Amino acid sequence: AQVSKLLELKNLKLGDAKNGSKKGTQFTLKTPKGTRDWAEKDVALREKIFGTVTDIFKRHGGVTLDTPVFELKEILTGKYGEDSKLIYDLKDQGGELCSLRYDLTVPFARWLAMNPKITSIKRFHIAKVYRRDQPAMTKGRMREFYQCDFDIAGTFDSMVADSEALKILVEALDALNVGKYTIKLNHRKILDGIFEVCGVPSDKIRTISSAVDKLDKMPWENVKEEMTEEKGLPEEVADRIGEYVLLKGGPELLAKLKADEKLSANKSASGAFEDMKLLFEYMENFGILDRFSFDMSLARGLDYYTGIIFEAVTEASAPKKIASKKDVKKSDDPEADRSNDDTIGVGSIAAGGRYDNLVGMFSSRKNAQLPCVGISLGLERIFSILRNRIPDDELRANEVEVYVMAFGGGKEWTGFLKERMNVCSELWAAGIKAEFLYKVKAKPRQQFEAADKYGVPVAVILGQDEFNGGNVRIKRMGQKENSDEGVLVPRASMVSELKKLLASL
Amino acid sequence: AQVSKLLELKNLKLGDAKNGSKKGTQFTLKTPKGTRDWAEKDVALREKIFGTVTDIFKRHGGVTLDTPVFELKEILTGKYGEDSKLIYDLKDQGGELCSLRYDLTVPFARWLAMNPKITSIKRFHIAKVYRRDQPAMTKGRMREFYQCDFDIAGTFDSMVADSEALKILVEALDALNVGKYTIKLNHRKILDGIFEVCGVPSDKIRTISSAVDKLDKMPWENVKEEMTEEKGLPEEVADRIGEYVLLKGGPELLAKLKADEKLSANKSASGAFEDMKLLFEYMENFGILDRFSFDMSLARGLDYYTGIIFEAVTEASAPKKIASKKDVKKSDDPEADRSNDDTIGVGSIAAGGRYDNLVGMFSSRKNAQLPCVGISLGLERIFSILRNRIPDDELRANEVEVYVMAFGGGKEWTGFLKERMNVCSELWAAGIKAEFLYKVKAKPRQQFEAADKYGVPVAVILGQDEFNGGNVRIKRMGQKENSDEGVLVPRASMVSELKKLLASL
Repeated sequence: AQVSKLLELKNLKLGDAKNGSKKGTQFTLKTPKGTRDWAEKDVALREKIFGTVTDIFKRHGGVTLDTPVFELKEILTGKYGEDSKLIYDLKDQGGELCSLRYDLTVPFARWLAMNPKITSIKRFHIAKVYRRDQPAMTKGRMREFYQCDFDIAGTFDSMVADSEALKILVEALDALNVGKYTIKLNHRKILDGIFEVCGVPSDKIRTISSAVDKLDKMPWENVKEEMTEEKGLPEEVADRIGEYVLLKGGPELLAKLKADEKLSANKSASGAFEDMKLLFEYMENFGILDRFSFDMSLARGLDYYTGIIFEAVTEASAPKKIASKKDVKKSDDPEADRSNDDTIGVGSIAAGGRYDNLVGMFSSRKNAQLPCVGISLGLERIFSILRNRIPDDELRANEVEVYVMAFGGGKEWTGFLKERMNVCSELWAAGIKAEFLYKVKAKPRQQFEAADKYGVPVAVILGQDEFNGGNVRIKRMGQKENSDEGVLVPRASMVSELKKLLASL
Repeated sequence: AQVSKLLELKNLKLGDAKNGSKKGTQFTLKTPKGTRDWAEKDVALREKIFGTVTDIFKRHGGVTLDTPVFELKEILTGKYGEDSKLIYDLKDQGGELCSLRYDLTVPFARWLAMNPKITSIKRFHIAKVYRRDQPAMTKGRMREFYQCDFDIAGTFDSMVADSEALKILVEALDALNVGKYTIKLNHRKILDGIFEVCGVPSDKIRTISSAVDKLDKMPWENVKEEMTEEKGLPEEVADRIGEYVLLKGGPELLAKLKADEKLSANKSASGAFEDMKLLFEYMENFGILDRFSFDMSLARGLDYYTGIIFEAVTEASAPKKIASKKDVKKSDDPEADRSNDDTIGVGSIAAGGRYDNLVGMFSSRKNAQLPCVGISLGLERIFSILRNRIPDDELRANEVEVYVMAFGGGKEWTGFLKERMNVCSELWAAGIKAEFLYKVKAKPRQQFEAADKYGVPVAVILGQDEFNGGNVRIKRMGQKENSDEGVLVPRASMVSELKKLLASL
């Protein structure tokens, strides 16, 4: 019944196409806009990236948490400000109202609030999140995309967890080999102190902070214009801000800021100075200080940060073209792909910060705060950098190590199908990744082509006479043709010989 | 602004709870119905299960495919018959209409149809699927749950791929250690032949097949009643079916069926007999024949199967109580959890079959068929069996191997925080999973408790004098208290000593 329904449907939908009319109703064979399939070499590289960061996370005591792909709508409500319009809702089909998760941080905070017994944890989560944003597919801006978060929750001595989070970030970016990168680092409370000292009214601090955050995309005069013309800040206040937010450097900048009497007198800033002093010490101890730039222009969009904030950039992060005000206006079609928009770069490849109040927002218990610090790696952005850099033939879609073949001929020749099955079974039992061709009688050329297609490095050849004599031939693949006849070994030592050979590759 | 909005919201939602009224509007702190968080020991076991099957899939040349969690609605339309009502739709927020995937097979077929260059592939996919069904959480029946599929697509010599698919299934169930299991095996075309020979009208074959499929849940007389009373089959036809579908056995049953003249004369059945003969040969060759029961009562619900079908069951698969007709009626509340319903068992732990026509349904090209055979493991059902069986203290939430501690005292005692950081850095660089306590001065007891909480097997102790003398102490954890003082080793050989010790555990 289902099959006939399907065939009906197919005829209906494909009818016009078959009659040559391209305009008719067609069976749309695609993934939804802003989503993609991950297959073959792409998925192999992506899995390698996942494996690399997972190893590092586990090495630091991380445990994974897996939350549902959708949450009750009210859990997400009010968490993302203006961006809430980008949340995907599920259709109301009766029962609860749900939305697809927008990030992995809010579900983590929700889980912590639901599990008050957990007072400290290092959790990581690599999973897809959903945003109805304008896609720019080739730059890794998607509607469905992976986030990769590592967060440390708990009440600890100052800056110790923060420094390990930064250590993990450096280990990950180094291990992934993303090329030269810089991690911009700042402290929310220094920034708040600067705004207070410069005379920004407290109700404007977050919106002025957002304007500052655009300094990586537009020059100071445009940011200043936004502050004064759009956000109504007096020009002299903006000018004072300008004197601070363009500063960047290392621990010596901290000394310079401390020497600023007005700023040192500010309670918010002076507390943060103590934090930064300790953090720099621990970072030096971890040997990671040289990767960072203490950068007053880094403000980060999200409101929930309460301590250090950071963002890692590479050359690919910056847009090819600085956006003028005109450019920033989005295309009229919100569904259009913006891959060719030069005012969009790959963006930051990692970011994060400390957020001490988010968990408490989900809890009805008094003082139910659980301070957190976390990093988030932009794995798809990192993927697009690496995919362009790594030569295609260095990537393999599958991991098969041995292709089992049979060569023979003449009237008596059976094709050795069962013999190939047996040899494969032996290899599988020994943990060796092996394949054979699903043909009763397979020609040598077909078998070599099948092995070469996926770059299988070794062949085990069952020669008609050799195999009956108790031997198999082990041959390296991918060498020049006929350059290597392989080595004849007794079947009994096949597995150990193969293991030796595979370990040497 | 977001923070203040949140706080507002919190006050609003939590207001009544604070005033002691439990009935008021509350901030609902839960996951959506039929979904769950995977955390701590649960997720550790689940990851182990995923790792075991992934290794086996890769050993057989499998490559992973990752498709979007939602598909265009029309891709899913018409694929699931009556169960289509269980599909989750996304809200229409402008743009395309989308639905959450219901299984991993239809997205795989969609992908193959979109990528006609791929003429053969072994793909696996472990991912969540979505069904708005009545949940029975403790039995692994969820609305969001993992499927784990391995499928072989391509045109090959008869039954070779099928036999490797069954070999993979056996390897997986054996490696997972699910306990005693049986895999019921049948062939759609034998079943169709039986129905034809017994006189079932062709338009009733699928519905009668569905009735037969219930033989694992109810006795023959109830199934017969359904065939005759509900589905209008003449009683003598039902009786003839009864003579066949209660048969089960091994290759000798195949001989018996072949000896049945009427059945052998049926074109559908006789072709399938050839398939089964070859399959049994290959299965014997792979050494897996003893795990199977050739079972005429296995029909499988899905319509798209065209060849072999199979289903693995354990003791936990069967319901505690055979459902009478009355029981089968679902509760009035479709949202109610049915965990305590004894007429529901864990169900089959794996299933699959051959489906040669599904890919073609997505394609407008002529003869665009791509034959497939696949297995699907019920990983959450397997999880619930293993979680009950494995003692809790054998599971660890994290994988930390070494806890780095410092012991000291007196006025000069700094707490060795930076020293612990340095030692950890050294261990991390050597690939050893290590942690330290995020306290400047940590008491020995606190450090031991932190290590014991997660069952960390080894401690590296930085004694105040010992460390200054260039030595660290390596101590096995989890032994009786004070039974082991550990071994003092020079710091320079710490990593190699630890690697030796960890390898021996």
